[in-house]
Amino acid sequence: MEHTKYVHGYSEREALRLNDQADTLEDIIHNDTVFKSGSLVLEAGCGVGAQTKIIAEKNPDSNFISIDISKESIHEAQQLIKRLSIRNVVFRQANLYKLPFQNETFDNVIVCFVLEHLHNPAVALNELKRVLKNDGIMIVIEGDHGSTFFYPDSREAHSAIDCQIQVQKEIGGNSNIGRELYPLFKSVGFSDIVVSPRTVYVDTSKPQLVEGFIKNTFTAMIEGVGEKAIRHGLIDRMTFEKGIKDLYRTTEPDGVFIYTFFKGFGTKK
Amino acid sequence: MEHTKYVHGYSEREALRLNDQADTLEDIIHNDTVFKSGSLVLEAGCGVGAQTKIIAEKNPDSNFISIDISKESIHEAQQLIKRLSIRNVVFRQANLYKLPFQNETFDNVIVCFVLEHLHNPAVALNELKRVLKNDGIMIVIEGDHGSTFFYPDSREAHSAIDCQIQVQKEIGGNSNIGRELYPLFKSVGFSDIVVSPRTVYVDTSKPQLVEGFIKNTFTAMIEGVGEKAIRHGLIDRMTFEKGIKDLYRTTEPDGVFIYTFFKGFGTKK
Repeated sequence: MEHTKYVHGYSEREALRLNDQADTLEDIIHNDTVFKSGSLVLEAGCGVGAQTKIIAEKNPDSNFISIDISKESIHEAQQLIKRLSIRNVVFRQANLYKLPFQNETFDNVIVCFVLEHLHNPAVALNELKRVLKNDGIMIVIEGDHGSTFFYPDSREAHSAIDCQIQVQKEIGGNSNIGRELYPLFKSVGFSDIVVSPRTVYVDTSKPQLVEGFIKNTFTAMIEGVGEKAIRHGLIDRMTFEKGIKDLYRTTEPDGVFIYTFFKGFGTKK
Repeated sequence: MEHTKYVHGYSEREALRLNDQADTLEDIIHNDTVFKSGSLVLEAGCGVGAQTKIIAEKNPDSNFISIDISKESIHEAQQLIKRLSIRNVVFRQANLYKLPFQNETFDNVIVCFVLEHLHNPAVALNELKRVLKNDGIMIVIEGDHGSTFFYPDSREAHSAIDCQIQVQKEIGGNSNIGRELYPLFKSVGFSDIVVSPRTVYVDTSKPQLVEGFIKNTFTAMIEGVGEKAIRHGLIDRMTFEKGIKDLYRTTEPDGVFIYTFFKGFGTKK
């Protein structure tokens, strides 16, 4: 046996450590959303500020410019940030494809749950890269609905999820874009690309994620697409309703639910 | 803003840290397979010793008794361990359902990639629990073929993977058992159950996993079930071959492949 192999092992062996699982989405997705002190960061597609509040609080010595195409969303985000007394964010209505900023303005750019909605994510990434400084780092976080699986398994639940994927596709988006982050970053010419999966694993020992993620985030989203999917003939009502019932079934004491987000880092060189 | 919230954040903010992704399966699965010095550990279903060599080298101050139902596998495992000059493992041919050990013999029990092959995983777990000491920790590691997704996506590749799942089911096993670890541990009455996903994410930046995992482990396994699946009428030859081709397609420069293992810890109380 090579003795050097155990240098790390010996210190670990004091106790059988249980894996320290993150219990909130915020931990899983934003644990390493950390910018250098004094950074100027563009958050593109901030929506109503759900991620803005997390990343701005997590980086109080950075300054954020958060943009969105929707005036209404910007207004809501502004109210939220004001209510929380967060002072390092400036909002601006702007189009991702045509940013109102000079070349090489920002130290970092961050995009959360936005590319999935775009017709041309690579074009948008390219425009975002334009306003990023040289050696600046871009962060992209996206979900991937095709990553979903659960116990007990259910054909109908998968069919209901597929409806969401299909409807998103019909309107020009891509619900499975998470798995594509690496090729996307590459196609736009980023360097030092690192993509990692952020798997959300939920069983009954995590009641907060059972309520907050399985029920109120994921299943509510799938439910919301039902009428449209039925109207478009993507699924019949009985199958859809059984699918939703089976998704809720995964929140019972023996149920398990797994979903994977992806986070990509790329450097402009 | 609550200032206390940033205690951890401040130290992190020195640099934008890239996520430190494990590059080998061993890191992902066994990073925390660590036993207290002097532990007596039962490895149940050691096969030809592929995991034995990793966990025995990682825990040189523990002693392992590794069992398998197959005399031939035990013989191969013995040769391997001897060749590596590992001295803390004793092998024994034995039946998982009827262990030749007294109650409360072992400090720990570990089971890797075994439950997926069993008709009655809960019965086996219960027998393994019998020989575990009180306060002893059981570790179970299993894959889940239903967790597989990739870019570019392919219907045929999913159909080929489903063949493996179907064939495993026909012979009484369960290729999707990873997601069931939590309810399984619970049904057998373990305490302090912690299950975590171990997601293997592979893109071209990880050539070792492209070769070692996508090609030589996963796709080779699916390919191996082809003739049987075609013979049993589960799939036609053209679809299967297209599926395999599409799995290899994920190893090209823009390809991405994701698979999730699960690791469960449970304490006997």
